Amino acid sequence: MKEEKRKLEVCFSPALYPEFRNSESIVVVVDILRATSAIVTAFMNGVNKIIPVASLEEAKEYKERGYLVAAERDGIVRDFADFGNSPFNFNRGVIEGHDIVYSTTNGTQCIMVASESYRVVIGSYLNINALYEYLIRENRDVVILCAGWKNRFNLEDSLFAGALAELLLHHNNFYTICDSAHASIDLWNLAKANLMEYIEKTAQRHRLKKNNLDDVIAYCHGMNATNLVPMLKENYLIAF
Amino acid sequence: MKEEKRKLEVCFSPALYPEFRNSESIVVVVDILRATSAIVTAFMNGVNKIIPVASLEEAKEYKERGYLVAAERDGIVRDFADFGNSPFNFNRGVIEGHDIVYSTTNGTQCIMVASESYRVVIGSYLNINALYEYLIRENRDVVILCAGWKNRFNLEDSLFAGALAELLLHHNNFYTICDSAHASIDLWNLAKANLMEYIEKTAQRHRLKKNNLDDVIAYCHGMNATNLVPMLKENYLIAF
Repeated sequence: MKEEKRKLEVCFSPALYPEFRNSESIVVVVDILRATSAIVTAFMNGVNKIIPVASLEEAKEYKERGYLVAAERDGIVRDFADFGNSPFNFNRGVIEGHDIVYSTTNGTQCIMVASESYRVVIGSYLNINALYEYLIRENRDVVILCAGWKNRFNLEDSLFAGALAELLLHHNNFYTICDSAHASIDLWNLAKANLMEYIEKTAQRHRLKKNNLDDVIAYCHGMNATNLVPMLKENYLIAF
Repeated sequence: MKEEKRKLEVCFSPALYPEFRNSESIVVVVDILRATSAIVTAFMNGVNKIIPVASLEEAKEYKERGYLVAAERDGIVRDFADFGNSPFNFNRGVIEGHDIVYSTTNGTQCIMVASESYRVVIGSYLNINALYEYLIRENRDVVILCAGWKNRFNLEDSLFAGALAELLLHHNNFYTICDSAHASIDLWNLAKANLMEYIEKTAQRHRLKKNNLDDVIAYCHGMNATNLVPMLKENYLIAF
């Protein structure tokens, strides 16, 4: 019935997203170090829903209303918040059955930017195969939206985009004419045999190390820890 | 005297340039297929100066004032213009000693976007070694600004950025902490052994072919045809 192939694109920065905007596409938001890896982890550990907010002011208002709040900028937990952006913060004992409000440097802004698409889903290595299966099932155009760093391209999100793009293009239902997709796939194939060594050269690796936050890098590059695909419904994320 | 190393960055799209803006940097504008290759060719063939204009309206006004005008959008010559965007248009017989007004889809806008930097220079494979020597001599921070395609990343400009970035980083005076620079260099090293084959997968290759404009691709990837480095002075380009 659905013979037509679906278009796959990769967008390297939320600042470039206006060129990719399409109300019929599914947008996969990617912020490997660390927002989307942390969001997937929170759902693995039983969080009820996550309310992404772009500004710290909004996050603070939610805190005053009694919500659990995760909020960081440049990798540093804000003083009013319950925790920051490390997936290791989202322990089952603290978050199971709760709603969390979440604001980060790049990741949550990115979710907002894409909110007028057909659907926003959360991508990470932790749920890459579940994502792949979900996107095949939905059979729609896909934009993989890299959060980057303050509107700049970053390597770690682009590598993930390459990993997911390659999976989708191996499936017969997708095609691409997007140079960013080709570049991502080539970078992924260059890096994948020794991913941790390749990640050494990224700017974010050095930022995290400087703040003693580099413990999560290997965790955030672990494959297929869960079958959950978090997605945006109205103004919050839930996962199935 | 100047012990401090100079920062090298690569910017993948004029839409991302605000994050790289620095009034002390030299910006190398790159639009390999075809604006910056054509500009370098025009100077090789004796053009006096080139006045880049962003809008077609401005180009048309110059035409009415008697200037030679090169103007295209999406690879197609505009009807009021003397020629389009192919380097093969800029023959010595037509342009030697003349001033040309020039407006293209991506390249000339990019020159305008960067005009508040310390200096804007024009980059192409045709003058890559001259550029390298110029940048070493000037000893300032460098941003390689890829024109891309309608604000999107493109492969052919990024490959050139990688080629130039690698040359500069081999020189002891430059360093980078820019993920786009690392990505460009890796893509360049992947592509360089068989550049024409790699270029086959770019979207621009297919756009040019569709319009029977693909004859210039090999020419635009030829190395070191000239020692000229065109640069912006006030509102026009000249070359030394």
